[in-house]
Amino acid sequence: MRIFDNRKPNQMPKVHNFSAGPCILPQEVLKQASEAVINFNELDLSLIEISHRSKDFVEVMENARSLVKELLGVPNNYQVLFLQGGASLGFLMAAYNFLPQGKKAAYINTGTWASKAIKEAQLIGEVEVVASSEDKNFNYIPTGFGIPNDASFLHFTSNNTIFGTQFKKFPISRIPLLCDMSSDIFSRKINPRDFDLIYAGAQKNMGPAGTTLFIVKDSALGKTGNKIPTMLDFQTHIKKDSMFNTPPVFAIYVSMLTLQWLKKNGGVDWIEKVNQKKADTLYNEIDRNGMFRGVTEKVDRSNMNATFVLNDDSKADEFNKMWADAGISGIKGHRSVGGYRASMYNALPQESVEALVDVMKEFEKKFG
Amino acid sequence: MRIFDNRKPNQMPKVHNFSAGPCILPQEVLKQASEAVINFNELDLSLIEISHRSKDFVEVMENARSLVKELLGVPNNYQVLFLQGGASLGFLMAAYNFLPQGKKAAYINTGTWASKAIKEAQLIGEVEVVASSEDKNFNYIPTGFGIPNDASFLHFTSNNTIFGTQFKKFPISRIPLLCDMSSDIFSRKINPRDFDLIYAGAQKNMGPAGTTLFIVKDSALGKTGNKIPTMLDFQTHIKKDSMFNTPPVFAIYVSMLTLQWLKKNGGVDWIEKVNQKKADTLYNEIDRNGMFRGVTEKVDRSNMNATFVLNDDSKADEFNKMWADAGISGIKGHRSVGGYRASMYNALPQESVEALVDVMKEFEKKFG
Repeated sequence: MRIFDNRKPNQMPKVHNFSAGPCILPQEVLKQASEAVINFNELDLSLIEISHRSKDFVEVMENARSLVKELLGVPNNYQVLFLQGGASLGFLMAAYNFLPQGKKAAYINTGTWASKAIKEAQLIGEVEVVASSEDKNFNYIPTGFGIPNDASFLHFTSNNTIFGTQFKKFPISRIPLLCDMSSDIFSRKINPRDFDLIYAGAQKNMGPAGTTLFIVKDSALGKTGNKIPTMLDFQTHIKKDSMFNTPPVFAIYVSMLTLQWLKKNGGVDWIEKVNQKKADTLYNEIDRNGMFRGVTEKVDRSNMNATFVLNDDSKADEFNKMWADAGISGIKGHRSVGGYRASMYNALPQESVEALVDVMKEFEKKFG
Repeated sequence: MRIFDNRKPNQMPKVHNFSAGPCILPQEVLKQASEAVINFNELDLSLIEISHRSKDFVEVMENARSLVKELLGVPNNYQVLFLQGGASLGFLMAAYNFLPQGKKAAYINTGTWASKAIKEAQLIGEVEVVASSEDKNFNYIPTGFGIPNDASFLHFTSNNTIFGTQFKKFPISRIPLLCDMSSDIFSRKINPRDFDLIYAGAQKNMGPAGTTLFIVKDSALGKTGNKIPTMLDFQTHIKKDSMFNTPPVFAIYVSMLTLQWLKKNGGVDWIEKVNQKKADTLYNEIDRNGMFRGVTEKVDRSNMNATFVLNDDSKADEFNKMWADAGISGIKGHRSVGGYRASMYNALPQESVEALVDVMKEFEKKFG
């Protein structure tokens, strides 16, 4: 089938898409996904109208799970699952599967998502918030806190999409680490062995909304004494190779394509450098340009979501018009921070960051 | 963009897709979905890379919810939600939201899915199975059973995908009805007022796998005294217009397209007649043709999933080759029933059923 003649796979998107999520995906992935919706694997059937038990889809699921293992270096005693419900359901599943009756869990509160994780865990058992940056509207990552040895695990959020902070180093802990990596998984190297559970909504660096990745240490499961509902029990899904019930076929397929794209281009080693360059480009300009200032502590700045504000708010309309005219989309800040948030996920090209920097320079020239 | 030149929107698919789910969707829906993955609403952005809070996606969500209300005649005191997790998570949510502490619930067991619903409800409270067809491998729909007035609700599965039975009339009950309609919603007229809760995985008559529809009576909620986890509480999602967290964007969009297709063609009134004709065509042949017999009680035969077996199993290879050669796909029976299952969901054309009937006749001529 000759389709998409007028847009090449690696062609720059016309819009500079800084959306905080769901967010930009590689153009070639979108093209492949679009084709599979019409005719998948030359079956003359759409990807979305075949059985999830068919050979063709089982292969997709297995490829996606293998790619996660390969790209992140997940050891064999960990299981990779593609489930549903987002990190929001993951908060509950983490606590159900890891917090034994009568024990407590330690949580770090670095913002909206961490707070929600804490709230769900409190339904299952006792929670000790061992550190929080709430006192400064979550504009930094807490350090120097103690981790109670009698807690069952320490839970934290690796990157805070809304506030623009990121753990540059993970906590050193004697107790197991559980981490919500929704907004920075696959953006940098990690060592999965440091964690008993990693989970992440797909809709940032991995794929479209609609599936949630879980990387879970087998031997850590089945020890809580909780009566876990079937769908919330990781063991249910492990036993059925992540196909206990009908999986979100399309979201998993597009995740597989995105992971293939990442592998082909050099994997996490490669993207970590790409992402560092993008972040440096933008933060350097924020610091250099007298019209702007960053929102967070410099040392805790997220490479995924850069938050910044105008020094003179009365010029907001002018700046907003300028970036919109330049084809830039999705940089309005979250209402709990205000100003601007430029999300620079894996598929955002360096060129888009440079387009934004150009606008910032132009703005300085005109109004500085 | 000129794409799909070589396949017209209403053209017959080359494959007769009898898949039990995920299953056939209208060709024009697949085409629109495929285009939106590249360029949605002329935004020069993909549907799957924009914010779910954007005007364009909020409109999709609201359209999808309105179409459900319009097509099924849902009264204004009911809420329509598009969530995640499939009916399998719905089993748990139904019980959490409707079974008060210290009370019991009544369930009808008509097969695999009903059994799973019972298992989840037992985690929340007491369950009385008031009727079951397990004694005959679920090949009929139970009748003549009592419904305890002191139960909080009666739960049943309207259509049993695996065994091929269907409630032709719903139970008359003084207590509220809760119904898993995953495999026959939008296939026939219903009166939503008869139910406090209707739920359904999308992947049969509504769209692709990845979202679950809930139609819930507002005033029935908040009365159980259960501490319901955030994501499992219908009130969480009602308060946020079905967008508490990132919804499965693609699955909801394709559901909206499929519902638009249904409306345009005449709605549920129309499809009910279309489906009746397809079912009559196939069941008449099963009854007429000496090579086959139906699996279920005639009066309880599902219009969605027809189960049948060969009278002489030794001819299976020949029959299997014949239907495969005719471009028929997805009619192998579920392992718990054996034989064949032809699923005739909304988007399956009459012509596909006739193609199957032709093969059955041909098979009789050759081997009868």
